[in-house]
Amino acid sequence: MEISKQSIIEAHERINAYVHRTPVLTSESINTISGCSIFFKCENLQKVGAFKARGAMNAALQIPESDRSKGIATHSSGNHAQAIARAGKILGIPAYIVMPSNAPQIKKDGVKGYGGQIFECEPTLQARETTLADVIAKTGATEIHPFNNYHVMIGQATAARELFEEVSELDYLLAPVGGGGLLSGTLIAAKYFSPQTKVIAGEPEGADDAYRSMQSGKIELSQSNTIADGLLTTLGDKTFPIIKENVERVITVSDAEIVSAMRLIWERMKIIIEPSAAVTFAALLKDKASFQGKKAGIILSGGNVDLEKALKLFTK
Amino acid sequence: MEISKQSIIEAHERINAYVHRTPVLTSESINTISGCSIFFKCENLQKVGAFKARGAMNAALQIPESDRSKGIATHSSGNHAQAIARAGKILGIPAYIVMPSNAPQIKKDGVKGYGGQIFECEPTLQARETTLADVIAKTGATEIHPFNNYHVMIGQATAARELFEEVSELDYLLAPVGGGGLLSGTLIAAKYFSPQTKVIAGEPEGADDAYRSMQSGKIELSQSNTIADGLLTTLGDKTFPIIKENVERVITVSDAEIVSAMRLIWERMKIIIEPSAAVTFAALLKDKASFQGKKAGIILSGGNVDLEKALKLFTK
Repeated sequence: MEISKQSIIEAHERINAYVHRTPVLTSESINTISGCSIFFKCENLQKVGAFKARGAMNAALQIPESDRSKGIATHSSGNHAQAIARAGKILGIPAYIVMPSNAPQIKKDGVKGYGGQIFECEPTLQARETTLADVIAKTGATEIHPFNNYHVMIGQATAARELFEEVSELDYLLAPVGGGGLLSGTLIAAKYFSPQTKVIAGEPEGADDAYRSMQSGKIELSQSNTIADGLLTTLGDKTFPIIKENVERVITVSDAEIVSAMRLIWERMKIIIEPSAAVTFAALLKDKASFQGKKAGIILSGGNVDLEKALKLFTK
Repeated sequence: MEISKQSIIEAHERINAYVHRTPVLTSESINTISGCSIFFKCENLQKVGAFKARGAMNAALQIPESDRSKGIATHSSGNHAQAIARAGKILGIPAYIVMPSNAPQIKKDGVKGYGGQIFECEPTLQARETTLADVIAKTGATEIHPFNNYHVMIGQATAARELFEEVSELDYLLAPVGGGGLLSGTLIAAKYFSPQTKVIAGEPEGADDAYRSMQSGKIELSQSNTIADGLLTTLGDKTFPIIKENVERVITVSDAEIVSAMRLIWERMKIIIEPSAAVTFAALLKDKASFQGKKAGIILSGGNVDLEKALKLFTK
C-alpha cells in the first residue's frame, strides 16, 4: 500500500482533539555538546507519555461505527497498551489488552486506570497471539496492532509533521526503531513534508534487528538484550518495506551510551525520557562528525520509566 | 515605585531574543487528582533551568552602555547566579558572582560554564554582602540583586504574561515565594493582564516568612528548615509592599507534601522540577476544596536538582 500525503493530513485532523501538540524544545548546552543544532519533538510529553497515543487514536477512529462498539484489542506490555485503553475510554468502547503475566504492575495499573480489560497470558509471543485471537473471537473486537498497521503508522507520522511545521530545513531527523511504526511514519512524513530531510534510525545494539535487516534485505528477528524495553520488537511486513526504501541509515548504540544520553537529557533539558527515547540522541552523539554544524530533529518517543529504576541506572 | 503595564511589555520585547518562550503543559491525570484544571507554565524548561533568566537579562540590558562594560555582580548560590553569569556571557561583559564556600560544586560549575568569575566567602549573609561590596568597589560592576530590584521583578513578570496570553480566564495563579521576585512580578502581571485572576503564593513551612509577614504586616526573617532551597530568602523592601497589597493568600506546605507533589509532576508530566518548584502544586493539593472545578495556573519555577539527591527524596 502506498500511503498518501492526504492520509497523513486527514489523520492529523482526526486525532487533533485527542492528543497534545507536543512542544519542540532546544537546549544551548546540548547543542554545544553535540556540535549541531537539535530540535527535540517531545512525545514524552504526549498523552499516555508516548507517541503511541497518536497511532492508537487514529486507528480506533478509522473503525466503522458498526464494528467499533464491539471494542478494540491488542497485545502489548508497553505504551501501546495504555494508548489503546485510553482510546477505548475516549470512544466509550471496550478495550481488551493481552499482557504477559510478568508485565510490570505499573503498566497494568496504567491500563486499568483507563478502564482497559487485561487478559494475562504466558510471556511468550505465541501465548500472546493465541490469547488475543481468543479474545477477538469471543468479543468481535477489532485488533489494533502496535505498529504493523497502516492507520497506526499514519497516526505516528503526525509527530514528524508537526515538527516540520515548526522547524524548517532540517538536515536530519532521528527516530528510534523497534517494530518500526514510528520510524515508518516519520519516513513518510519526511517524504511528503520535508523531502530534503534525511531520516536516520537509532537502535540498541542488543536489539539490532533493523540494522541487520537493512544489511540482509529481509526481516531479521530481534534479540532482547537491552534496557531500551520499548524497542525489542521485530520489524513487520508493513513497516520494513517503507524503512528499507527510505531510511538513510541505522545507527546502533550500547546500553551505556543510552544511559549516558538519557542522563544528559534529564539534566540539561529537565525532561524525563525513557531509555528507548534516548537511543536517537545516543546515536547522534556516537557519530557527532556526521552531524557537525547541521540542523537535526529528534523525536523523543516516550517518558514512561520507573523513577527509582532510572535514577539507579544513573548511579551505577 | 509604581510598576507600569508598559514596563512589562517593554521588558518582554527586550528579553525576547534571549529567553525561551516556555511551554504551557496540562495533564489529564493531574487534573483528575486535583479536581481542577491546571495550566503549568514550565519555567523549569527556561534557559539556565529557571525563570531567573528573565529578570537577570532584563536588568542587565537596562544598565547604561557606559556602565555595562564594567560588568555585573551579585551574591547568590542558586539559579540567579547562573542567570547573571549567562547574561554577562551574552552581553560580552564580566559577571562577578559571590558564592558561599559551601555552595555545591554543581552550582559553581554552572557559573563557570557561562564564564562567570566566582568569589568565595564565608557562608554568612554578612560575608556575602561585604565581599560583594569589595568586588563592586574594585570593578565598578553594577549589582543585580536576585529579587529586590524592579528590573528583575519586571523581568520575572513576563512569565505570567505569557501564560495569560495563552490561557484566558484563569481563576487562580500560583507562584512560589522566597525573596518575592517571581511572586511580585506575577502579581503585577495579573493586575494588568488578567485582573480577575487571584494570585496565591506557595511557601515551605520551614521558611514561612512571607506567611508570617502577611500576618504581622512587616517583613519577618526567614528560617531555613526546608528542602526547598530556592525559597530560603527573606522578602525585600521592594517586593513586600507589592505582595502585601496584591496577594490573595499564602499557603504553607511541609517538606513531605513538597516531595509528594514533586514526584507526581515527575511521574505524570515527565518533567523535572526542583523542590522549590513543587511548593505551589503541593499548596493546591493541600487545599483542593478551594480550587474545586476552577481553572488554575501554576508557575513551575525551576528544574535544577541533583538527580542522586532527588532519588534519595523519592525513596526515603
